Amino acid sequence: MIQNFALRGFLLLFLFAVLIPKWTGAQQPAPNLIPVPASVKSGTGSLRVDSSFSVALTGYTEPRLERGVERFLQQLWRQTALPVNLKPAKSAQATLVIHTDHANKEIQEVGEDESYVLELTTTGAKLTAPTLLGTLHGLQTFLQLVDVSPDGFAAPAVTIQDRPRFPWRGLMIDSARHFTPLEVIRRNLDGMEAVKMNVFHWHLTDNQGFRVESKKFPKLHELGSDGLYYTQEEIRDLIAYARDRGIRVMPEFEMPGHSTAFFVGYPELASAPGPYQIDRRWGVLDPAMDPTNERTYKFLDEFIGEMAGLFPDKFFHVGGDEVNGKQWDANKRIQEYMRAHGLKDNQALQAYFSKRLQPIVQKHGKSMIGWDEILDPSLPKDIAIQSWRGPESLAAAAKQGYRGLLSNGYYLDLGWSAARHYAADPLSGDAANLSPEEKQRILGGESTMWSEYVSAENIDSRIWPRNVAIAERLWSPAEVRDLAFMYARLDFISARLDWLGLTHRTYYRRMLRRIAGSTATAEEFAALVTLADQMEPVKDYTREETATVEATSLSPMNRVVDAVPLESDPGRHFGELVDKFISASCQDGNAEARLRAQLATWRDNDAKLQPLAQRSFLVKDVAVRSRDLSALGVMGLAALDAIAKRQPAPDAWKTQQLATLEQLKKGKLQLLLIPASAVQKLVDAAAAGGTCAGAK
Amino acid sequence: MIQNFALRGFLLLFLFAVLIPKWTGAQQPAPNLIPVPASVKSGTGSLRVDSSFSVALTGYTEPRLERGVERFLQQLWRQTALPVNLKPAKSAQATLVIHTDHANKEIQEVGEDESYVLELTTTGAKLTAPTLLGTLHGLQTFLQLVDVSPDGFAAPAVTIQDRPRFPWRGLMIDSARHFTPLEVIRRNLDGMEAVKMNVFHWHLTDNQGFRVESKKFPKLHELGSDGLYYTQEEIRDLIAYARDRGIRVMPEFEMPGHSTAFFVGYPELASAPGPYQIDRRWGVLDPAMDPTNERTYKFLDEFIGEMAGLFPDKFFHVGGDEVNGKQWDANKRIQEYMRAHGLKDNQALQAYFSKRLQPIVQKHGKSMIGWDEILDPSLPKDIAIQSWRGPESLAAAAKQGYRGLLSNGYYLDLGWSAARHYAADPLSGDAANLSPEEKQRILGGESTMWSEYVSAENIDSRIWPRNVAIAERLWSPAEVRDLAFMYARLDFISARLDWLGLTHRTYYRRMLRRIAGSTATAEEFAALVTLADQMEPVKDYTREETATVEATSLSPMNRVVDAVPLESDPGRHFGELVDKFISASCQDGNAEARLRAQLATWRDNDAKLQPLAQRSFLVKDVAVRSRDLSALGVMGLAALDAIAKRQPAPDAWKTQQLATLEQLKKGKLQLLLIPASAVQKLVDAAAAGGTCAGAK
Repeated sequence: MIQNFALRGFLLLFLFAVLIPKWTGAQQPAPNLIPVPASVKSGTGSLRVDSSFSVALTGYTEPRLERGVERFLQQLWRQTALPVNLKPAKSAQATLVIHTDHANKEIQEVGEDESYVLELTTTGAKLTAPTLLGTLHGLQTFLQLVDVSPDGFAAPAVTIQDRPRFPWRGLMIDSARHFTPLEVIRRNLDGMEAVKMNVFHWHLTDNQGFRVESKKFPKLHELGSDGLYYTQEEIRDLIAYARDRGIRVMPEFEMPGHSTAFFVGYPELASAPGPYQIDRRWGVLDPAMDPTNERTYKFLDEFIGEMAGLFPDKFFHVGGDEVNGKQWDANKRIQEYMRAHGLKDNQALQAYFSKRLQPIVQKHGKSMIGWDEILDPSLPKDIAIQSWRGPESLAAAAKQGYRGLLSNGYYLDLGWSAARHYAADPLSGDAANLSPEEKQRILGGESTMWSEYVSAENIDSRIWPRNVAIAERLWSPAEVRDLAFMYARLDFISARLDWLGLTHRTYYRRMLRRIAGSTATAEEFAALVTLADQMEPVKDYTREETATVEATSLSPMNRVVDAVPLESDPGRHFGELVDKFISASCQDGNAEARLRAQLATWRDNDAKLQPLAQRSFLVKDVAVRSRDLSALGVMGLAALDAIAKRQPAPDAWKTQQLATLEQLKKGKLQLLLIPASAVQKLVDAAAAGGTCAGAK
Repeated sequence: MIQNFALRGFLLLFLFAVLIPKWTGAQQPAPNLIPVPASVKSGTGSLRVDSSFSVALTGYTEPRLERGVERFLQQLWRQTALPVNLKPAKSAQATLVIHTDHANKEIQEVGEDESYVLELTTTGAKLTAPTLLGTLHGLQTFLQLVDVSPDGFAAPAVTIQDRPRFPWRGLMIDSARHFTPLEVIRRNLDGMEAVKMNVFHWHLTDNQGFRVESKKFPKLHELGSDGLYYTQEEIRDLIAYARDRGIRVMPEFEMPGHSTAFFVGYPELASAPGPYQIDRRWGVLDPAMDPTNERTYKFLDEFIGEMAGLFPDKFFHVGGDEVNGKQWDANKRIQEYMRAHGLKDNQALQAYFSKRLQPIVQKHGKSMIGWDEILDPSLPKDIAIQSWRGPESLAAAAKQGYRGLLSNGYYLDLGWSAARHYAADPLSGDAANLSPEEKQRILGGESTMWSEYVSAENIDSRIWPRNVAIAERLWSPAEVRDLAFMYARLDFISARLDWLGLTHRTYYRRMLRRIAGSTATAEEFAALVTLADQMEPVKDYTREETATVEATSLSPMNRVVDAVPLESDPGRHFGELVDKFISASCQDGNAEARLRAQLATWRDNDAKLQPLAQRSFLVKDVAVRSRDLSALGVMGLAALDAIAKRQPAPDAWKTQQLATLEQLKKGKLQLLLIPASAVQKLVDAAAAGGTCAGAK
């Protein structure tokens, strides 16, 4: 990460000047566009946006386009509170003239032209696109350009030519492990539109729930959902909502594993006798469909037929991951079948299942897509692979002629930083060495929001704003990689997404308020915020390891670990400040003063919070980490004192501090104390002596 | 206001022990109930609320009651995030057993029994009510009792017997001057339910808009609304939504004045020839219906007939206020008519109109209600008066046998403090001396949200939480008056209302974010918040006086004055801190340190904010007030320095400071600097010398 601001500025200029040669005329600061367009040419002056603002549609039009403009104007209203004219204007008078050339496909396809050209001058704006898809993207770009100025709202003069790097830019939401209310999905579709994502991958079934109404097999949703499912009418409405926003909806029905919810109503599909209950725990569980039983395929034929009619998208996701094979191993009839058919292991059995499944999916007009495990060279090239394993398996599939998507690196539930997601690239690693034709098969990627630990209350915060970094990776030129620039724009878009109705900013204090309870004083509540601000949930799949009670899908999600964001902005900023201080040879007095103030706040915070821990079990739950934060404050101050002496601190001191830090850095109560590593840098600097040589 | 916390605690005890003798056994702290119930008897221990929580309905039931319980459980989920069981339980197992005795009226009436008894013990809870109205209120009380505890969520053991003081507890929203989207009204109905208000008075027509679809006279909404109106189906849905929450919906159609919106489509109703346009300005305007023309009554008969069918409530509000009479004076035919019929002045003409109108309203099955001006002794006692003038006119009406409501003192748009609204009482002033029978005619009151300066974005903040103080005044025993206790509970309920979906807390930073623009640094934004936190819009009807541009219904509401709350909590807290400091003879070192920190922040704030004023016209707009806040900081610090000398500050100094303060205290840019009067107390204290004698 680039800590030095002058250097950062230089790199930005470098970026504009060299890496994206089309970014010319960048005397003005780069606009806050995210994802960064393919080409931006700054002009002179700006276009005033006031209550006379109007829009005209020319060329091809359809009601969906009109609704898009209406949505655009409403969003412009949210941004400005100007009483904008919702009625379309005549093109001669309009501030923004839109020209859409022709219709896109009735059912949106992968790889349709999504490009647009947006020209803003001081007198007006013109948005041109081959189809509505580009028009919608261009409108979002326009919205990002509008800001306050010294004399009213305005958008800078600019010419933007834009098109996506990848045709498939998706977000997957797991509505099985925890049900996702429709309003949550709708607002997330709004967020996707804002950052030009175009596929909503809906993970609808898993061990923990079957979320779709089936008219042919009603026991699926009746017995497999706790009553938490989407009716077919709701699904059709949601697909229409997404289509309005240029977003495809691809359903996923997990098979042969992750399928307990099928078996609650239809145990005969499973490889071991029932009865089955909805699973309340997660992980790789045993239940799996019986691939050797013909009635499995008969059922799937009818079921997929029904779902193929409900979901218009060309792609039909059949899951296919994480079959542990235990039920297959334990079933004698299956074992006999495998021997009789020369299926030498469970992998072969799964390949057999995939080969039987694919023609069924195809028969109903769909292309089959699944996770890595479905890949078998005997399958036709029409199928596609979604890779949770990594770019290697993706590249291998592409070499074999299969299309693929990257999700490895984009697992939002793992709690990675936006920077780390940003680094993942579908064309990195082995994929970088593919031939151009093979590269074409890498369609893009999808972020995935697995829902073990998300509720309607915190899900937005688990997706946004980090998902925007992934959206940019999939849309913008590969060369756009500067982290400081990305984080600055993440801040910008995060505020805009809040206006759009996403709750990733507002949920936090609401959840902390519940944790504090209504007896908390203002000072106690502030102390809770101070603590929570510096924590993140543990990363990857370690949450279970540090849990005091095993979580299930029925566990309440009301604890501090459920409330804190997956990436702590204050924690990151503290780290940046430490780096700034150290890189200035520990001589930056202003930075030191700010560090001291912050560290002293932490030192004193535990005493302020402890009384509340006596009254709220949810605060008591994190009392240990509160003490840890105060310990960190004390240690950081001691390090600064030692640095001030300009002599290396004693080795014994350093050894002791590092031993303590090892403890503080550990995940406890499923929580990480983010500034611990930055404080370690201060300790290292103190040990290195006054010049801070050797630190960092 | 009670500043001393020990004193406050004593008064609370006093309040419980003496003023509300039924509040016995109050060893435990008083629960955070608002409005305070008629009788609360604390028990021992508490009832655990966990995921086994369940509800059973016994006695009378109906779908509305089941929906009420479902809403209750969803709200309990919001408060706790526990996966509560939405299915009704059998009474033997249920945590909360509800017994409702019988149905209430199909169309809810004024004065129905709304009482309930709620008993909580450590083992369970019982809610008993004559009708669903009491049951719904009891459920809200239960929700307020649930809080975090040292070992889980819990509600204290308690026995509550409760009933409202007044049968009519209303909120009026003016949807004419600015249109109110339905979702805004719905969430405000949720808020009303939470604080036991039971009448939504919907101000649907005024000079600035006609907001109801009329099938008989479609030009009313087609030409009078800019397309912003409610369809009849939407209105029916909203009435059902309100009815579910025990809330009556009373419509208001303003006549004969405030009626331009009628005339845009039907100019023949007016007293001066048309054509008419929707008014964009407000105040008392000239247009008025022609009371001397028979076709006015023919029209109103048909129109009221249609609306009487749409709105089931017994009361039909006809407005009736603020006719300036200019159109009547200028119309020769009307003047002749007055002479011919012995109508000696415009008041007599309006009385004539009311007398003609009342039988029409009655014919359609309704009781007529209007503002003070409709009152005329010749009208039957069936009508009711809503008093904007004050308790005197209300008492006078009651003496004449008319029923009445108080709204004077409850005008939310005037920007009064919650404390000031809280002091207004329907049975105060002349009304206190009425006979018991006459007092019965005072049905209660209504807060009024006139919408000159409210948008969908800030309206919740203009209503809540101050409206809760009015809700308590109308529900709770008259003796409940302690301000510190009220403000503490206002804080509590404000957080709960936020959970309910009201935006009165979240809107603020969103609006400030827009004002700051996306180039604002974190420090600049913090400086804007610091400034905005200490300001309120000017009070009463002075906003126009301090405006730089005349506002209309088309003006954007995006300025700082639109963003700051009508009552500044930080401003109030600063005032409390100053009072605490002075009442401790200016010797409280801790209070002094906190005052100095706050004053220094203000002193330095303008320098931090000025760079942003160069980039945002909306910040530049308040640059003067930013300088004023810094001046206040400097002055406060100087006063503290002078106080520290323990000698009276020179008279010349005091004179100069007070002259400056006079300027700072004035409304500028429609904004008041709230801490100015508290700083004045410091100046007075400095002038009085070290003991602070004479100050305050």
